[in-house]
This record gives sequence, C-alpha cells and structure tokens, in this order.
Amino acid sequence: MRIVLFGTGNLATRLGIALREKNTEIVQVYGRSGSDASFLAKKLGCSPITSLKEIDSTAELYILAVSDAAIAEIASSIPVGNRIVVHTAGSIDMDVLAPYSDNYGVFYPLQTLSRQREIDFSHVPVCIEANNSSNLEILHQLASLLSDTVVRIGSDQRRQLHLAAVFVCNFVNHFYSIGERLTQEKQLNFDLLKPIILETAAKATQHSPSTVQTGPAVRDSKIVMDQHIKMLSKHPDWQKLYELISKDIKNLQQ
Amino acid sequence: MRIVLFGTGNLATRLGIALREKNTEIVQVYGRSGSDASFLAKKLGCSPITSLKEIDSTAELYILAVSDAAIAEIASSIPVGNRIVVHTAGSIDMDVLAPYSDNYGVFYPLQTLSRQREIDFSHVPVCIEANNSSNLEILHQLASLLSDTVVRIGSDQRRQLHLAAVFVCNFVNHFYSIGERLTQEKQLNFDLLKPIILETAAKATQHSPSTVQTGPAVRDSKIVMDQHIKMLSKHPDWQKLYELISKDIKNLQQ
Repeated sequence: MRIVLFGTGNLATRLGIALREKNTEIVQVYGRSGSDASFLAKKLGCSPITSLKEIDSTAELYILAVSDAAIAEIASSIPVGNRIVVHTAGSIDMDVLAPYSDNYGVFYPLQTLSRQREIDFSHVPVCIEANNSSNLEILHQLASLLSDTVVRIGSDQRRQLHLAAVFVCNFVNHFYSIGERLTQEKQLNFDLLKPIILETAAKATQHSPSTVQTGPAVRDSKIVMDQHIKMLSKHPDWQKLYELISKDIKNLQQ
Repeated sequence: MRIVLFGTGNLATRLGIALREKNTEIVQVYGRSGSDASFLAKKLGCSPITSLKEIDSTAELYILAVSDAAIAEIASSIPVGNRIVVHTAGSIDMDVLAPYSDNYGVFYPLQTLSRQREIDFSHVPVCIEANNSSNLEILHQLASLLSDTVVRIGSDQRRQLHLAAVFVCNFVNHFYSIGERLTQEKQLNFDLLKPIILETAAKATQHSPSTVQTGPAVRDSKIVMDQHIKMLSKHPDWQKLYELISKDIKNLQQ
C-alpha cells in the first residue's frame, strides 16, 4: 500500500516510523516547515514536500496526522480523486472529510506519543472508522499490521475515549509535573516518587481504581488535608485543585 | 528484633507481611477490632490483642501503623518504658512521640499500599527519622532489610514528599476512576485506556514530565477543549477540573 503522510509532529513521526518498520511504502511526507518535513522524510526514506500541489495523486491512502484545525483545510486542498483519506484525531468527526472524497475514515492511535520517545506500536490500541465496509476492511488490515488491538468504533465513542484519555494521561502527566516541582522546592529527588507512580498505574490495570483509592481524602484525614492546603500557599491554583479533587474523591466513594 | 505492630489497615498489613518475610519477630498485633487483629495476627504468626493493657512491654520496637489521629492517643497509653516507638505517617511530625519515650522516630514507606494487593517491598522507598543517631542506625538496619531505597529525611521534607505523593498517586488514581466512569458511560472497555496509563507513567520515569506533555491543552486546541467541556455537562465538578487543569498546563509551559 502506497501512503502519503501529512504532518511532522509527535503522532506523524511515531506512526510514520511504525509503518516504515512494517515495510509499508510511504511515498511522501508533507510538512509546512521544510526542515521538519526533510527530517522526517529522511527517517522514512521518502520525499519531503512543503506544497500541497506536489502531492502524489497516485497513492492509495492519504493520512492526515496534522493539527485538528488543519484537517479540513488540507483535505480540501489535495487532489486525491476518490482515494482513501483518513485523519488521526480523537475528537474530530469522521464526516469532516466527506466533502472531499467518496472514501474516507479515521485511524486514531490511543496513546501519548512523543517524537523523542520510542514506542512499541503493537501495544497501542488503534481505533478505526470508515464510511463503508470495504474501506473499514482496508483500515483494519493496516491497523492490524501495526497493533495487536484494533477496535472499530464510531466518532461518538472515539470522542469519549479521547476525553477519558485527557484525564488519565494529560492531566495525570500534569500532576507528575506538579510532583516534580514540589520535590524540587525542598531539594528532594524526584526519583523517590517513581515507584509510587509506577505502582499506582500498575494497580489501575488490575483493580477498579475507585476500589483501591488511598490517601488523606479517602481516609477523611482533615488534619493532613488542612496541613497540605497550608503548604500550598504559594500555589493558589494547586490549593484549589487540592480542595476540589479531595471533595470529589469522597463523593465518588459514596 | 522483637516488634509490636499497631494497626490492621493497608499499611500495617503490607508492612507486617514484609517484616515477616524477612524473619523479623512480630510478637503482637494490636487492633481495635478483634476480627481484624486476629486476621492479620494469623498471617503474621503472632498474637492478636485488642486492649492496650495487654501490650508486651519487653519488645524492642513499637510500630504505630495507625491513623494519623490515633498516633498520639496510642503512644500515650502504652507501657513502652524507654523502648523505641515509631510512627509510619507521611505528614505527622516525629516530635508528637517525644512526650512518651526517650527513643522515637519515623518509619515511612512511600508507596500506595492495599491489603488486597501484594507488593515487592524492596522497591518501596522507606523514609526514616529518629531522635538520635543510634536510633537512626537501628531504623536504618531494619529499613535496609526490607527495601533497596532507604532515605534519612526530616519531618519537613517528609511532609513535602507526602504532599507530592497525594498529587502523583491519590489524585492520579482519582483520574483513573474518572476515566473508568467515562468509558462505562459509552459502553467502552476500560482496558482500552490501560496502555496509555502505563505508558504515561513509564514516560515520567524517563523524562521530565513537563517536557513531554501532550494533548489539547498544551496544543492549545480550543475546538477540542470546548467540545470536552460540553461533553462533561452532566459532571459540573469535572468540567471545573477540566478548565482549571487545562489552564494550569498552559501556565506551567511558559
């Protein structure tokens, strides 16, 4: 299958590399920035392009791994005829692609991806959707090449998964950042928190998280919670978060 | 070393089992509830007691693995003479024990512990503190028996570690619970989120978390954030959290 890949960010990079490792033929990488496009194209052994007019119109699949705002803009500007166009976004409806081709879909890897960090794509769930069953089958074959977990879900469920992922990944990572800052403030090594970070995550994969909650909020230890609020006096936003989340932990247990 | 263990909760259970596995002699387990005390004492091969008057006054170490509020209450009621008394709490000052013995300290395992979940204690950092160097040496020996990571830190730093742990463990686990609820609401399998939960945690142990943040807030994707806020309309508390944390993610990147 000959593929044109749009985008040079975290997702485009990791997806491109995963496709390349499975000997899929990526013919072009499009990026607005010439240096980013060249950098990724070199890794993938294909041509970099920065003008949508240079798109190879003979490829079989066009993957738009670009920002949410750029999806429709790019789809409207490329001469793909009736070839398959997909986007990779968690929260964008499949139908934004409907005006531009008779064959379209979504290819959404549910994972936090970073250019600088390698990932084993076989463990990345890929959520697929397509406008008809033959396109869905094509996407299913491609997704199965990369991943052990391929799920066919609609835009409504995909959006909900993305929302849940914001909580369990992006917001969680932000709390790791807060933890790092708090240790730095008292000359403590962030490494001390790594075992509890890993164990908390491992626990959630083996128990329903609300049944294994620990800490001052679930124990309703007011002495400790009041002390923590005071210790956060330099961080009023974190004080507010501390209060809201502690209250919510108690609510969820009821 | 002959030890009396106070408490039958998550920490007392996991610490007792870890001590037992290293052939430490636990002589008694104290619990307010007779059935809880019997249950744990049976696991540890020792006597359960429910009255503080029955405490064996010939042990060498008294470990108060009880609720924050009960530490001083129990310490004031036991006939330990000048033997070593320690508590296991993250946020309680060592000096609460000063009125009750000339030998005291803190033995704080920095981990989320649950009665129902086994743990490899060698990976649990143990933070120790004592009122003099010979007691500190005794606690250091005991902690080193259980764990590969033993740190000597004062009450002020321990309190800060505990606060950081509330963010990276308790609050994180609450967000896992929210993720689970959100998947259930749309008949999605929570298993789909497990790879991203594990990868987010693993990433934080290998990169500074704020440098690998992903998601709509750090991309400043207003379309997606507005959509997510709308999707949370049945959960006004989660809407508020979503807004506050997204704002804070952007602040921390600046």
